This record gives sequence, C-alpha cells and structure tokens, in this order.
Amino acid sequence: MNILKLEMLSKEAFAPFGEVIEIEGSDWHPINGGTTRRYHHLAPIDAGPEGGRPGISMARGQAFSYPVFVSMLERHPAGSQAWIPCTQTAFLVVVAPNGPDGRPDETGLRAFRASGSQGVNYRAGTWHHPLTTLDRQGDFIIVDRVDGAPNCDEADLRATYLIDGSLKGA
Amino acid sequence: MNILKLEMLSKEAFAPFGEVIEIEGSDWHPINGGTTRRYHHLAPIDAGPEGGRPGISMARGQAFSYPVFVSMLERHPAGSQAWIPCTQTAFLVVVAPNGPDGRPDETGLRAFRASGSQGVNYRAGTWHHPLTTLDRQGDFIIVDRVDGAPNCDEADLRATYLIDGSLKGA
Repeated sequence: MNILKLEMLSKEAFAPFGEVIEIEGSDWHPINGGTTRRYHHLAPIDAGPEGGRPGISMARGQAFSYPVFVSMLERHPAGSQAWIPCTQTAFLVVVAPNGPDGRPDETGLRAFRASGSQGVNYRAGTWHHPLTTLDRQGDFIIVDRVDGAPNCDEADLRATYLIDGSLKGA
Repeated sequence: MNILKLEMLSKEAFAPFGEVIEIEGSDWHPINGGTTRRYHHLAPIDAGPEGGRPGISMARGQAFSYPVFVSMLERHPAGSQAWIPCTQTAFLVVVAPNGPDGRPDETGLRAFRASGSQGVNYRAGTWHHPLTTLDRQGDFIIVDRVDGAPNCDEADLRATYLIDGSLKGA
C-alpha cells in the first residue's frame, strides 16, 4: 500500500495548485472607520476564458476519519473553485500536477491538512480530491462557475494511496 | 431617538436587497459520490457591466454590543458584495431602499439580525451599514470586485437610529 504523508497547508507549499485563503499571515488594511480589517484579494475568481458565470454556493460534507483512501481525482478545466470552511472544520486537500498524458502525475501527488481557518482556491485544471472533511461534518462556501457548462473531469489513479494522518518528515 | 427594531434575517424578507446565503431551507443535490450535499448557486456574483474582476477577500470585524447607533450607510454601485461568516458570528444587516434623490430612503430603513450560519449578498447599489459583528470579533469571507474601480458611495443619514436589540413586533 502506498502511504501518502500529510503536509501542513501553507500559501507557499500550495502555490503550484492555487491559493490558500486565510487571515493568518495575510496583509490587511483598515476599512469601516477602522473597525474592520480587510484582507484584500486573497484569491482570484476565474470563470473561464469564454465568459462563464461565477456564483456562491455552499456544501455540507460528511465526516471522514483516518485511514482515508485516495483512488481518484477530479479537475475543473474551465474555472477556479474555492472551498472555505464556515464551521471551522479541518479537511484534507489532495492534489497532483497534470502529467504529460493529461492525467494526474501521481509521482507529484501531495496531501495537505487544512485547518478549520484555511480555505483553498483550486486553479483551473488543478487535479484534486473531492471534499474530505476530518472528524466531523463541515459546512463550506464554494465559489466557482454556476452556468452549467461542462467543467469536471475525473481520473482513476493507477494506485490507491492511504492517508493515515501521519505527517511528512515526522 | 429613533429606535430601529430588529427582524430575523430570511431570504424572503431580504429579497429586495439581495440574497441570504445559508444552508437552512436551501435546495441541495448530492455530489462527490453522495458524501457531500451541494447547495447550488445561492447567490450570483455581479462584477458590473463593464467587465469588473471579482475576487475572494476576508475580513475581521471588531465586536459591537447593543446599543448600536446607525447614522450612515454605504453602497457599491458597480457590483454585488457578499459577507459570509466563517467563525459562526452573528452580525447586523441594516439596509435601505434607494430614494428618488439617490440617497437612502430612511422611511424604508430595516435592520436584520443574521445568525452565525447566514451570509448576505448585497445587490449592486443596495444601501447598507458597514460590518457590525455582534458580541465578539468575527471573521468573514467577502466576495466582491477587487479591480480597484471606484465602487463605494457613502451617505450620512438625516437622523441617527438606535438598535437596542429588541425585535420588531415583540
């Protein structure tokens, strides 16, 4: 069995795949007469080159516990997709680069643990695993295209990977 | 002193001003092999007619306690603006219709109490009060234009209104 070790999610580590949406470590400026800090433009919204229509949706994900098995990934070729927890629920973020054959490059497969105060924005075309909420049910904000154009590819991986909760390098 | 009584926030009551973003009472369909419920397209993202660029930002709002005084409103004429709590923090949503003079119509001023599991999306041009988080500091997701085009009008009200936390009709 292939064990996939976890990394803690950070903007730098996730940069090849998209943006981490979080207050920690982000710049801000005061608004509303100084009563609010605005952490401006943490992630772009990409609705595709052909004028797709973005919208705000929500999701409720069921709880998963270790061990988590990863055997497929999906991608949205025609736009970005953001997942941001609104119940402070931790979740797994499993991503892979695109291979020369247009499938996930499993040699570059990475698994991050997002804390309940971190969201992610998958860049258009980023291979990623469906929502995997840790330990308890979680509610999320989704920002992506809502116009109904075909925008989801799925790929079965050549192997199955097991995430047992252990950290890379630990 | 003008007392402004609170209403509980609901999609129906807020419809003249924008959308309520919440799971409660919203339709869903299963995704991710049935492990996730998607509450699709709860709010549109309006980046203006001239091709503005929307993005995802965050905000941290300081705590307010009753009595809250309302003496000004603002609006974003060139795009929608969503505020969605990610720390389950209740907040006030104070809005007014646009008057014939292009200023807030204070006879239509309304104040809603949003629960910590409700967000709002102000339609372009909706007069609203800046973020007023109740009782404790709160973190929010903002979805609005991030391209820097002028997009904020402010208006001082003719009177000051006091919100003491009492409910309309109570």
